[in-house]
Amino acid sequence: MSTIEQRIEHVVDSILRDYGQGRDIDKIELRQYPDKAVITDIIEKLLRIVYPGFFREKAFRMYNAKHHLSMLIEDVMYNLNREIRLVFQNEGAQNADEKAQEICLAFFDEIPGIRALVQTDVQAAYDGDPAATSKDEVIFCYPGLYAITVYRLAHVLYRLGVPMIPRIMTEYAHGITGIDIHPGATVGDYFFIDHGTGIVIGETTVIGSHVKIYQGVTLGGLTTRGGQSLRGMKRHPTIEDNVTIYAGASVLGGETVIGRDSVIGSNAFITKSVPPCTTVSMKMQELQYKERSCAGCPKVKDHFQ
Amino acid sequence: MSTIEQRIEHVVDSILRDYGQGRDIDKIELRQYPDKAVITDIIEKLLRIVYPGFFREKAFRMYNAKHHLSMLIEDVMYNLNREIRLVFQNEGAQNADEKAQEICLAFFDEIPGIRALVQTDVQAAYDGDPAATSKDEVIFCYPGLYAITVYRLAHVLYRLGVPMIPRIMTEYAHGITGIDIHPGATVGDYFFIDHGTGIVIGETTVIGSHVKIYQGVTLGGLTTRGGQSLRGMKRHPTIEDNVTIYAGASVLGGETVIGRDSVIGSNAFITKSVPPCTTVSMKMQELQYKERSCAGCPKVKDHFQ
Amino acid sequence: MSTIEQRIEHVVDSILRDYGQGRDIDKIELRQYPDKAVITDIIEKLLRIVYPGFFREKAFRMYNAKHHLSMLIEDVMYNLNREIRLVFQNEGAQNADEKAQEICLAFFDEIPGIRALVQTDVQAAYDGDPAATSKDEVIFCYPGLYAITVYRLAHVLYRLGVPMIPRIMTEYAHGITGIDIHPGATVGDYFFIDHGTGIVIGETTVIGSHVKIYQGVTLGGLTTRGGQSLRGMKRHPTIEDNVTIYAGASVLGGETVIGRDSVIGSNAFITKSVPPCTTVSMKMQELQYKERSCAGCPKVKDHFQ
Repeated sequence: MSTIEQRIEHVVDSILRDYGQGRDIDKIELRQYPDKAVITDIIEKLLRIVYPGFFREKAFRMYNAKHHLSMLIEDVMYNLNREIRLVFQNEGAQNADEKAQEICLAFFDEIPGIRALVQTDVQAAYDGDPAATSKDEVIFCYPGLYAITVYRLAHVLYRLGVPMIPRIMTEYAHGITGIDIHPGATVGDYFFIDHGTGIVIGETTVIGSHVKIYQGVTLGGLTTRGGQSLRGMKRHPTIEDNVTIYAGASVLGGETVIGRDSVIGSNAFITKSVPPCTTVSMKMQELQYKERSCAGCPKVKDHFQ
Repeated sequence: MSTIEQRIEHVVDSILRDYGQGRDIDKIELRQYPDKAVITDIIEKLLRIVYPGFFREKAFRMYNAKHHLSMLIEDVMYNLNREIRLVFQNEGAQNADEKAQEICLAFFDEIPGIRALVQTDVQAAYDGDPAATSKDEVIFCYPGLYAITVYRLAHVLYRLGVPMIPRIMTEYAHGITGIDIHPGATVGDYFFIDHGTGIVIGETTVIGSHVKIYQGVTLGGLTTRGGQSLRGMKRHPTIEDNVTIYAGASVLGGETVIGRDSVIGSNAFITKSVPPCTTVSMKMQELQYKERSCAGCPKVKDHFQ
Repeated sequence: MSTIEQRIEHVVDSILRDYGQGRDIDKIELRQYPDKAVITDIIEKLLRIVYPGFFREKAFRMYNAKHHLSMLIEDVMYNLNREIRLVFQNEGAQNADEKAQEICLAFFDEIPGIRALVQTDVQAAYDGDPAATSKDEVIFCYPGLYAITVYRLAHVLYRLGVPMIPRIMTEYAHGITGIDIHPGATVGDYFFIDHGTGIVIGETTVIGSHVKIYQGVTLGGLTTRGGQSLRGMKRHPTIEDNVTIYAGASVLGGETVIGRDSVIGSNAFITKSVPPCTTVSMKMQELQYKERSCAGCPKVKDHFQ
């Protein structure tokens, strides 16, 4: 019988041998890979740039804001630049350095545009939710706004051709909020997500202005049986302006269009286009009522009579 | 063509100019805002006060518990006091200092009451779930209990009139558990949430004793079209004692009452009151069965014959 | 009127007195309890062992991999050993020390087997999702793969008879992904979960090879009214090879078997067995279309004519 030390050594050796098979999960030889922890840090800092003053800052005042902001942006730029370079290098891209630098600058150029959009999202959430007591509460608390903001940042990187990182960003927000917006989706202004848990918005979805979506809504594909053969096709629906989609509804298919000003009721399952200005709802579900036989229920009789 | 340094400076400048528009997202002038990181820390420490011994403590024994506990409570009190003061100051409240101090003391006075309630929640989870092997497992692992405990703490602050912070607390728990309980809801003892992901419990919901709720249940409003005009109205249902609501069901509307001892089946969509002692379920969904034409499926024939 | 200091002391005293009641939540006397923060750290390190190179490592190359890996495994082994010992001691088990040591070694012996399984899961996700651009993206971003990997690790500890810790592990993944897989479930190779939020897979579920499951699917029990009396019984379904279950479907009951190569449609509610090679879907939901009376909707007429 071998000693504990020998047995531990044996275990370590056999795991190490197992790394040498060249499978997708055997990346031990790679020494430069994008780093999720760094990307997480970048996301949190970008949120501070988008919502200055709302996230932890000590003594954050106008007269030192320029100094502080410069440092913060340069920090994020340095790290984002590096992560983008790494993903390009891993893909064997030419001029990874230069491409990363250009994309980084182009991305920060769009920050004011992103901020203009999220201001409309804040307004939409406040206007749309009777439980919202102030816009500050929306900014501080609403997971929908969090997921939308991270999506809007990631979408710009996606449009600029950055691989992998946009998806890491939206999946980070998905982890926190339960809201899964693919960075490839196109989303107009005044977008409001309430509660949000369980929402899925697929890669080729197109969403107009002033759209409201509730928890559990899927904007998805009709079938995934094609797998990789469907890549690049429009597989997800188009939602026009002023549409509201209530909790649990599914809208599926790349040719499905929900016309402007329409309302999709809770749990509706939609696979065909809906004209503008239309309310679509399930026919009232037939429910069965059965009295439970619990001893000593005097009140029940009154109710059923 | 300008240098990289000049271009970075240009980007920083344009973002800085963008902050000066006085929109809701331009809070750069605010130097004292509540701090989400501090509130998160407060939540985690409150959980250690509610469940002493269950969360990380080194050498946590009876003979030094008083000393340790004093320090922990004083730490939380100091920080909670400060955060409450900040939200009051931001709202321009009079006597923010004194109000914060009084509320803080009143809040801690209610900790034994909150602990009495969560003990009933632990019991309800253990009794209700055959997968629970011990009450310790419930306390350590069950996201439902986590969300309920944070809600019970936040609800006391909500009742004491603290703005913003209660919602930050329940949204923190929402982020971890996928369970969205508004701090304004009223919830009786022996409350059990199983699995929990996707649950939404609205602000004006009233829940009795011994209620069980499963994943994906919405206790929500009938319409949100009114937006801010509906603020303060009872928009969410009342669930009486001993009611069970199975996965995916929705109970909507401020006048909807689910009578005591009733059971709401999976995926039921309820917009009207249900009498006591009643089982409500969807009429059995009609399903379509179609044989798939896959070559070489010898077993299938046997099944369909 | 007492001073603030006196009032604080009073509050602290009354909370302390409240700990002395011997309830489930009064664990103050316990000085050695498993530590969630340590277990979280163990999970994250195990993921680095399973996917070497994908998680943050500085200068992680083949020639120092053995050294690095030895340290990492020995670190995890030391801590896992200690946590397992603590849970056994808390249950009053005999020979907690030896049992913990043996289980720890047995667990690490299975790491290559777990890695062989997760490689098939990576392949299944890539093959099954047109939005996946590379297997690296799957490993970096997909919450389904994250939840499956943590489940596969936890399941081995569960089979080895470790209490509590496996559930803490899968609930940690549940918190991050919204996917709730009980460590007791049995899951074959090539398992693919897409999006995943809201999925529940119960303790006694059995899943074959090449199974695909989408967001919001429940593989659950038919009734939980029995509570603790049902413990240990097969309460959850069996899903045979090559089955696909689309979003929001529920498959319930310990005797329910979904035969191989079958497809369960979105939102289907299944409580009886389904033969192999069968597509089951809801009868097309009847929808109601109603024109909304909004002033100035010229386009609508065209659509409805």
